[in-house]
Amino acid sequence: MRIIVDVMGGDNAPLELVKGACKAAGMYEAEYTLVGDRSAIEKVARENELDISAFEIVDARDVVEMTDDPITAVRKKGESSMMVGLHLLAEGKGDAFVSTGNTGALFTGASLIVRKIKGIQRAGIAAVLPMNTPVLLLDSGANISVTAEYLEAFAMMGSVYMNKIFGIESPRVGLLNNGSEECKGTELQIETYKRLSENKNINFVGNIEANKVPFSVCDVLVTDGFTGNILLKNIEGMGRLMIDSIKGLFLSNSMTKVSALLVKKQLSAMKKKFDTTEYGGAPLLGFKKPVIKAHGNSKEKAFASAIKQAYFFASSGVIDDISREAATLREKRLAEKALENVPSHAALEGDEGIK
Amino acid sequence: MRIIVDVMGGDNAPLELVKGACKAAGMYEAEYTLVGDRSAIEKVARENELDISAFEIVDARDVVEMTDDPITAVRKKGESSMMVGLHLLAEGKGDAFVSTGNTGALFTGASLIVRKIKGIQRAGIAAVLPMNTPVLLLDSGANISVTAEYLEAFAMMGSVYMNKIFGIESPRVGLLNNGSEECKGTELQIETYKRLSENKNINFVGNIEANKVPFSVCDVLVTDGFTGNILLKNIEGMGRLMIDSIKGLFLSNSMTKVSALLVKKQLSAMKKKFDTTEYGGAPLLGFKKPVIKAHGNSKEKAFASAIKQAYFFASSGVIDDISREAATLREKRLAEKALENVPSHAALEGDEGIK
Repeated sequence: MRIIVDVMGGDNAPLELVKGACKAAGMYEAEYTLVGDRSAIEKVARENELDISAFEIVDARDVVEMTDDPITAVRKKGESSMMVGLHLLAEGKGDAFVSTGNTGALFTGASLIVRKIKGIQRAGIAAVLPMNTPVLLLDSGANISVTAEYLEAFAMMGSVYMNKIFGIESPRVGLLNNGSEECKGTELQIETYKRLSENKNINFVGNIEANKVPFSVCDVLVTDGFTGNILLKNIEGMGRLMIDSIKGLFLSNSMTKVSALLVKKQLSAMKKKFDTTEYGGAPLLGFKKPVIKAHGNSKEKAFASAIKQAYFFASSGVIDDISREAATLREKRLAEKALENVPSHAALEGDEGIK
Repeated sequence: MRIIVDVMGGDNAPLELVKGACKAAGMYEAEYTLVGDRSAIEKVARENELDISAFEIVDARDVVEMTDDPITAVRKKGESSMMVGLHLLAEGKGDAFVSTGNTGALFTGASLIVRKIKGIQRAGIAAVLPMNTPVLLLDSGANISVTAEYLEAFAMMGSVYMNKIFGIESPRVGLLNNGSEECKGTELQIETYKRLSENKNINFVGNIEANKVPFSVCDVLVTDGFTGNILLKNIEGMGRLMIDSIKGLFLSNSMTKVSALLVKKQLSAMKKKFDTTEYGGAPLLGFKKPVIKAHGNSKEKAFASAIKQAYFFASSGVIDDISREAATLREKRLAEKALENVPSHAALEGDEGIK
């Protein structure tokens, strides 16, 4: 197995990313290809006594910036570490790709270079929410508009991922909605509820209200990318608000500072629990090869976690399972389409004109 | 001023609601009408030594249940405390109405009985989010589908409310979106961005991402009711998750329990800060008279806060200001419509067929 690692882009490139790659290489036996500015990589390795001798380095001088428009980045920045890495992956010169760069460019690049699995209409970006038990949110921002068919495929892909990577036997799938009843939401949610209920390969547990999300009510949560983005970012913002508030609480006076010392260990465990970087990265699901988006502010530890996730993504057979299930969904769609074209009984009887 | 109080419905009726009314009456000089089952009200007053002698009581034997369908509740439960209260309000027998009951039924009842302000196409339910500084979220769940015109009116109504009730001179209005750039979101957000930018009576501060909401970036946050519901409930759920986690932290061992004693005061202040019941209730905006929805689990204190909010809603001239601004928006709409019907220059030149 070979993992391709984009060590440019993000807030801490290349030093923290090269450090993360070294850390991951010490833990997960695989071959590693670092993509980026060779002289910059060698310089930070030399200055920080990092042993990069076992890594293959592919020189790429250009960088996709966070402000780059996705389409322009793919078209005009073919020499960037991100696009070079995606091409290596597509050409079979590696088994997984990890990048901290511009999410939109990574998703668009994966769509155009790595390509979607046959039968998958839309790929998505999943995010592992750090709740009481981890929840895979899909889509978390790639597709602002979706159909019930896309959400059904997201439910399937999320189930495969949580099964293979988190070892959950029959992942519970929930539909994010504004109420628990079957009739809730817009037409999209109502139709999706129906599709998910009827799909025997999905362990659908119904509509999930946003206040229930933290409390282990589902393992996979499907929604459109607009709502997913709102939920994901709000969780991040609320987490920060709470951590800030707790800090403020303990800094009030000398008594509270003493109190902080007594709960130091528990506090750091709690902070870790709500740390979105703990799970390392967001898998892009629906592409032919594993692609992991690491957080833009990743440092050594978070980036190593993202590489670890790429390692398990590539070695656990997620893509094979998704491909098989995608073929089933595709057949179902074709059958539905064929049925739509069969004239109804009423039409056969010549009743079209009756209202 | 007379405030009409529905003391049935919700989780703690009628005892906590009658207690809340007594508490509010002790603080805000007004006349109060309690609507509900007279014998039940008199019984809890007697048993708990509550002085209700100054209150007018209007007997209403029926109750709208949380599970009632809104339309059915309005049509079939005319004798319920909620519908009787709304009719009293509409007939001018009071200046504001407060209820803890079924939100959908209250909103539908207000629409059909109290009626909308002229020029307002859709009323909305606002919620005061307990962030670093209070944020009025509108719509928080009444309208799952909206147009840019509705959101412009929500921005106007929210601005008036935050100005009159919270004393904010020029409330900052944000549009909840999946990115900060002008081009972000669906067609709805893009068109709304344009309308809000062009409206000189609104202090529009641009798109707001969900992770920024807690950090005092706007005073009014507009969105559709579906997304608003997701945001509001997620804030509630994350708040509970954090409070649970902090409790768990301090209960770990005897050392941490000592620590808890040292920060007791600060902890309770923090809990209060994130308590959604602190602000009392959610104003329904766009109706001819003030209606406040109190939380279904309100006890004495929260219900008294909701009554306080109704008191200020009715006495501060919110409705007058909204009515005036609504007339301006209506004129603008009519002018836009008239413009749409003017044949374009190209059409006048006979160019319709050219593509």
